[in-house]
Amino acid sequence: MLFSSSPLLIDTLRQRRVKLSYLIDFPAILWSGRANSRNFPANIYPFRASSHFLYFAGFPLENAAIRLYEGRLELFMDNAPKDNALWQGETPQRDQIAELMGADAAYPLTELFNYLEDAATIVVQNPITANEQRQLLNCPLVSAKEPQGIDLELTQAVIHLRLTHDQFAINELRQAAEISVEAHKIGMKATKTAQLEAQVRAAMEGVIMSHNMTCSYNSIVTVHGEVLHNQQYHHPLQPGDLLLADVGAETPMGWAADITRTWPVSGTFSPTQRDIYHLVLKAHDTCIDSIKPGIEYQDIHRMAATVIAEGLVELGILKGTPEDLVEQDAHALFFPHGIGHLLGLDVHDMEDLGDLAGYEPGRVRSQRFGWCFLRLNRPLKPGMLVTIEPGFYQVPAILNNPKNRKKYKTVVNWKRLEQFADVRGIRIEDDVLVTEIEPEILTKNLPTSIAEIEALVQN
Amino acid sequence: MLFSSSPLLIDTLRQRRVKLSYLIDFPAILWSGRANSRNFPANIYPFRASSHFLYFAGFPLENAAIRLYEGRLELFMDNAPKDNALWQGETPQRDQIAELMGADAAYPLTELFNYLEDAATIVVQNPITANEQRQLLNCPLVSAKEPQGIDLELTQAVIHLRLTHDQFAINELRQAAEISVEAHKIGMKATKTAQLEAQVRAAMEGVIMSHNMTCSYNSIVTVHGEVLHNQQYHHPLQPGDLLLADVGAETPMGWAADITRTWPVSGTFSPTQRDIYHLVLKAHDTCIDSIKPGIEYQDIHRMAATVIAEGLVELGILKGTPEDLVEQDAHALFFPHGIGHLLGLDVHDMEDLGDLAGYEPGRVRSQRFGWCFLRLNRPLKPGMLVTIEPGFYQVPAILNNPKNRKKYKTVVNWKRLEQFADVRGIRIEDDVLVTEIEPEILTKNLPTSIAEIEALVQN
Repeated sequence: MLFSSSPLLIDTLRQRRVKLSYLIDFPAILWSGRANSRNFPANIYPFRASSHFLYFAGFPLENAAIRLYEGRLELFMDNAPKDNALWQGETPQRDQIAELMGADAAYPLTELFNYLEDAATIVVQNPITANEQRQLLNCPLVSAKEPQGIDLELTQAVIHLRLTHDQFAINELRQAAEISVEAHKIGMKATKTAQLEAQVRAAMEGVIMSHNMTCSYNSIVTVHGEVLHNQQYHHPLQPGDLLLADVGAETPMGWAADITRTWPVSGTFSPTQRDIYHLVLKAHDTCIDSIKPGIEYQDIHRMAATVIAEGLVELGILKGTPEDLVEQDAHALFFPHGIGHLLGLDVHDMEDLGDLAGYEPGRVRSQRFGWCFLRLNRPLKPGMLVTIEPGFYQVPAILNNPKNRKKYKTVVNWKRLEQFADVRGIRIEDDVLVTEIEPEILTKNLPTSIAEIEALVQN
Repeated sequence: MLFSSSPLLIDTLRQRRVKLSYLIDFPAILWSGRANSRNFPANIYPFRASSHFLYFAGFPLENAAIRLYEGRLELFMDNAPKDNALWQGETPQRDQIAELMGADAAYPLTELFNYLEDAATIVVQNPITANEQRQLLNCPLVSAKEPQGIDLELTQAVIHLRLTHDQFAINELRQAAEISVEAHKIGMKATKTAQLEAQVRAAMEGVIMSHNMTCSYNSIVTVHGEVLHNQQYHHPLQPGDLLLADVGAETPMGWAADITRTWPVSGTFSPTQRDIYHLVLKAHDTCIDSIKPGIEYQDIHRMAATVIAEGLVELGILKGTPEDLVEQDAHALFFPHGIGHLLGLDVHDMEDLGDLAGYEPGRVRSQRFGWCFLRLNRPLKPGMLVTIEPGFYQVPAILNNPKNRKKYKTVVNWKRLEQFADVRGIRIEDDVLVTEIEPEILTKNLPTSIAEIEALVQN
């Protein structure tokens, strides 16, 4: 299954490396990495190949490398030792895999030693393989975030390619989105009888697993949505709670989806929850409607901030004009993160490269409260896949911070805010493909409206 | 939840380190390790602390160390940075955690530098932390399998303690067993409507996840039970197939269960499947009945081999006397692995130490075909938890091996064997606690009989 090929895959991989050859005139060697051990060597975490390797090699081969040069693909990997067949079954041999991926040549891993000259690379996450990369290429590859020389040139070329998705990738991304949509629907339906966050998580990840996919990141399924990356699942579900679920699937070839929905445990939003949900949804819809080639992603972020500020003024939580409030970062009291990020083989696509992929060359992260967590700052292009994920949170660490209390003393109606105590965190997130015409919401089959969500939870 | 304590836990941790202080007269420093990154730094695999750390610290703290000396416990860890509260929520501070674990003192991690003198350690799995251990202690800690000097003394002391389980550990192990039993029952029930292995796996892991536990190892759920560590889940379920499921839970504090059952996809074993199942079950029951203090685990392995050989003679698959066949390793054609292993914080408990824990000092692994995969070779003692997991497999790599075909030409009735083609792999595995009296099967609530298993699958 991991090793099923197709003419489209072989052709796609060829096109990717030919395009790479137009961008760089030196060889690139990409390593897949190794499995990480959990508590003893044989008890490993499920292997995840480096995304850069996957992009050009297609298959998640363990401890392999590929060399790309002038449109050619050479595979370096060792055949499994004979003993392996008892424990792992018969696995495809190097030459078979080379054929499945359309490689021009295939060698044992030790042969790589003879093909290193003038080659650039990107450092992988696995520390042992990263160390091998450094030793073999005999240069101080600090991290994938700070490449130098030809490694930087290679990184920029790979970013250029991976920023927009080809048809094969889009097919995979659609599949990941479809299964993730299904997982969220089942999660909503499972809430009625669930007593713990963990039970809803299990129902959702069960859908992903039953389609033989994995999660593209550690799921967030929590009644404490105000903890942005909450990865605890032990809280009981109470009737007045909102449940925030940020769960996405990854196809066997590594392509990711990323969806968030927030629903009422009881099946019915309270009036205050409805009010806030509506404003987050308005921000979500406004942003998606604005997506088109050429628009700056930071302008979409500002749009979300403005819609949220405007809504909070209408609800009497903030005081002032939306534009002024956004200028003061007052929206960030409740919407501290960015409006989204790139999505592809990584859920934060190419975040291993720091901001090299997310930020247009010459731009750097803002230090400002409302902008410092913006992960993407580029004009959009057809073929880019981005998330749109506005939210509203009451984060104690932000709202109880004495500096914020002082700075935003007159801007926030703290008394009024208290009436919204049953809204700890709401986020609505979809995956949106930029096209020449209308944006395509890959996750559109999952409803966002209050009526439809309540109906699913009440089933 | 991860940080809920109890007087029993605090007292247990104290008893463990006091016992350690009777065995070594130098300080021990144990590191917990770090989370491993998947495809970019923030996308981590769920953190699993080193089991040696967990045994004495109780809680799975990330990037922490403890120093144990003369019955004292000192905790070294840094408080989470302030920014962390936005993403991870408010996490307990070092001093709170120290109190929960009954530590005598707590310091920032950098302070560890002043407490290194004469200290021994055990190398963790995470390569970055392992490197830090080497640098800080300024010695060539190769791997946990080959400790030297005081590291070896510490390792032997820890093995002595961890070989038998205290009441707190047994409570945890019972919980892991109970949830794993439930997972298997649900797996059997889910088979009726499942079309893929992945769907049964999802149902089983869903039970574990819904109880906020994790899997203690990568599940095996396959119609190709002859691949011993099969971790692919894409095969369709066919009516005549047997499904082999080797799935176990791990409690939040890290204690493991390990269960295997094999059931017919259709709900009814075929006559040949019944025959083989019966002989594996007979081996299973005979071994468990023989468990008592003082018995050699290798003798239990030999017992399983003999029962299997005897049964295969009765079925006309092997020819000769059972004892002769075992002497020739003929049983290993169909039962190539060992009868089981230690179970505790690791599913193969302390396998990070190679065979130092599994093998009585002075004993080494046999090279023989029927014995080389035996993971435990010690006399049993009350408080030890072991698995008993006999099996029958038709592994092509073994049965089609020309050497084996030649060596066992007259011993195997190859023609007769062909009639058992619908039995690719059967394993029955339970977790058994050695006590002064009857062995306690922690997993006894999961049936082993054909009638009960068929009833569960047919539900």
